[in-house]
Amino acid sequence: MDKDFLKKFVNIKRETKAMINIDPLQAGGKLTDEARQALVEWGDGFSVCDFCPGRLEGIKKPPIYDFVHQALPDFIGADVVHLTHGAREGKFLIMHALAQPNDFIIIDKSAHYTTYVAAERAGLKIKVVENSGYPEFKINVDDYEKAINEIQNEGKGKIALLVLTYPDGNYGNLPDAKKLATISQKYKIPFLLNTAYAVGRMPINMNETGADFIVASGHKSMASSGPIGFVGMKKEWDEVLFKKSQYFAKKEVGILGCVSRGTAIMTLMASFPSVVERIKEWPKQVEKAQWFSRQLEKQGLKQLGEKPHNHDLMFFEAEKLYEISKTHKGGAFFLYKELKKNNIWGIKPGLTKNFKLSTFAANKEELQKVVDVFASLLD
Amino acid sequence: MDKDFLKKFVNIKRETKAMINIDPLQAGGKLTDEARQALVEWGDGFSVCDFCPGRLEGIKKPPIYDFVHQALPDFIGADVVHLTHGAREGKFLIMHALAQPNDFIIIDKSAHYTTYVAAERAGLKIKVVENSGYPEFKINVDDYEKAINEIQNEGKGKIALLVLTYPDGNYGNLPDAKKLATISQKYKIPFLLNTAYAVGRMPINMNETGADFIVASGHKSMASSGPIGFVGMKKEWDEVLFKKSQYFAKKEVGILGCVSRGTAIMTLMASFPSVVERIKEWPKQVEKAQWFSRQLEKQGLKQLGEKPHNHDLMFFEAEKLYEISKTHKGGAFFLYKELKKNNIWGIKPGLTKNFKLSTFAANKEELQKVVDVFASLLD
Repeated sequence: MDKDFLKKFVNIKRETKAMINIDPLQAGGKLTDEARQALVEWGDGFSVCDFCPGRLEGIKKPPIYDFVHQALPDFIGADVVHLTHGAREGKFLIMHALAQPNDFIIIDKSAHYTTYVAAERAGLKIKVVENSGYPEFKINVDDYEKAINEIQNEGKGKIALLVLTYPDGNYGNLPDAKKLATISQKYKIPFLLNTAYAVGRMPINMNETGADFIVASGHKSMASSGPIGFVGMKKEWDEVLFKKSQYFAKKEVGILGCVSRGTAIMTLMASFPSVVERIKEWPKQVEKAQWFSRQLEKQGLKQLGEKPHNHDLMFFEAEKLYEISKTHKGGAFFLYKELKKNNIWGIKPGLTKNFKLSTFAANKEELQKVVDVFASLLD
Repeated sequence: MDKDFLKKFVNIKRETKAMINIDPLQAGGKLTDEARQALVEWGDGFSVCDFCPGRLEGIKKPPIYDFVHQALPDFIGADVVHLTHGAREGKFLIMHALAQPNDFIIIDKSAHYTTYVAAERAGLKIKVVENSGYPEFKINVDDYEKAINEIQNEGKGKIALLVLTYPDGNYGNLPDAKKLATISQKYKIPFLLNTAYAVGRMPINMNETGADFIVASGHKSMASSGPIGFVGMKKEWDEVLFKKSQYFAKKEVGILGCVSRGTAIMTLMASFPSVVERIKEWPKQVEKAQWFSRQLEKQGLKQLGEKPHNHDLMFFEAEKLYEISKTHKGGAFFLYKELKKNNIWGIKPGLTKNFKLSTFAANKEELQKVVDVFASLLD
């Protein structure tokens, strides 16, 4: 293999590392210093398995056992927690274990694409509950009951699962999860709450909500390297989802024995005490998000999604920026380029009229700079 | 949550980091310096997604696209490569996409436990081809033909896949993969070669072997942090395994859109030029393994598995050590403890009579030290 070709894979710098980051995907996944240390200490392949008793979640040194069996269930208010490669893998795990091909799941219109794809991989039919459309795009969870009745009355098939995205990744809306739990209980259909953008950012308690399952993401919202996440559940689901192999008594079929046999579990653990602290600051995060929204609205942008807004994920409509892009020499890329020039990262290249962002990682001073750059462009 | 309890998850040191490592699971996964740099640079969650065009394998900066579409297929002689979380996830991906529940797969007796568990998760029936038993435990691939005939003649069901472990993780045996490829072609049954302990250690060319699929492991054998691996395949299987979602045109159902959205892909890439170089040294690795085997056999231990041995993974039977353990104050743990005291890591605690190890990571001087410790214990 050509040596010059091979050089391109080595010594690659991440140019955005020190920038103000408002990328919704990245704002909750920036490592703490403690996680960065763990990364180096436990980087070698299979290093967490030094003292493995036969399954990853049973390892007591490093204390993965305590983390998975005590810290995480306590943190999210679930009876049982198991590690996954991420929220999407958690969703597929639940759907594949719970449902038969051609069963239905009912999901919200604002669901992440991986909810669709996980259902597709499990061979399931998808019934979508619409949102309220422009400008708030809210989910009315009563519509799940209508969807249940429609499927059941028409004898279309079994409904295996209700899924609600909390919040959704576009608008950052927080629908009424508790109410959907009562509907799920009334119809005895299990209920999965997708909290990839919630657990690690804001307080969440699965049992208080009344959901059967919860999925979370380490790299999205828990200051962890990826890929890692977990599923939380009511106790009775543990043996359905995590039944042991008929061939190997210690190994769980649904996770192929062990999941996160690498560094990410160590970064997730190392950041955990900081994450426990940071969710206490959630009211301040919401206040900061609302302040930022007001600043951009003062300049003529329009924040879509719930108002007043209750999450750091936000979607903006910016007709004026779109108008500017039509004549700007940077064209559709002018906003991206101007922000980058000002050390701001996270709005996708080519977008001007509609874009999403997160205020989670940036402090108020940094967000003021973002506001100022928008002001200068709109001036 | 109690602060003293939370402290245990932070600042955890890996005590075995600087030891001579003969653990089969870890010997091929130790990071290169280049990978260690990549780990730090790309540790933040979702950092590889800075310039994402909609799918991970399409990312050109960092050059994941070139790595997956050009470097890896070239390296393993496959038409197409896709990333997975590891070899086991690759096996499940193939089985789940290819087979229907209750189809058969035929596997070798020496298969890794995850081959069984992946088949179980996909709802498949497993037919096992026995090995030759003590002392060599060799797989005669002609027995796959007998197994095929038995299932087909008795009308038991469809055979979806043949799986061969190359080498197996216990004895380090290398069965006749080319011959099994001709059998697979004769019966038109796809053939998967599990090379978790081969790719990255020794030269492998899937197309020359004639297999349809190959699975490999980054953290096991490619000097990478985990979890990461990949599947290689003949072109015609790409659209079966990686069909696009009916809902999202860019997203592949079998991998839920994107797989390795984290640091591991960066360590796999950063180590790759070194891995390309190290497989050229494979004859020296084999010579080193054979030398080590001879040294231990001189002391009365017996190497099981193929002889002369052709892989760094080896299994030893040590009747004498077992006898010593009966009266030693350390009991069954004496071997583990004595090795550890001498800075040697990798033989499981509690084993004396039978154990496996790898000579891959240790150099000859280090292995001489291992030999000397065994000599001192047997003296």
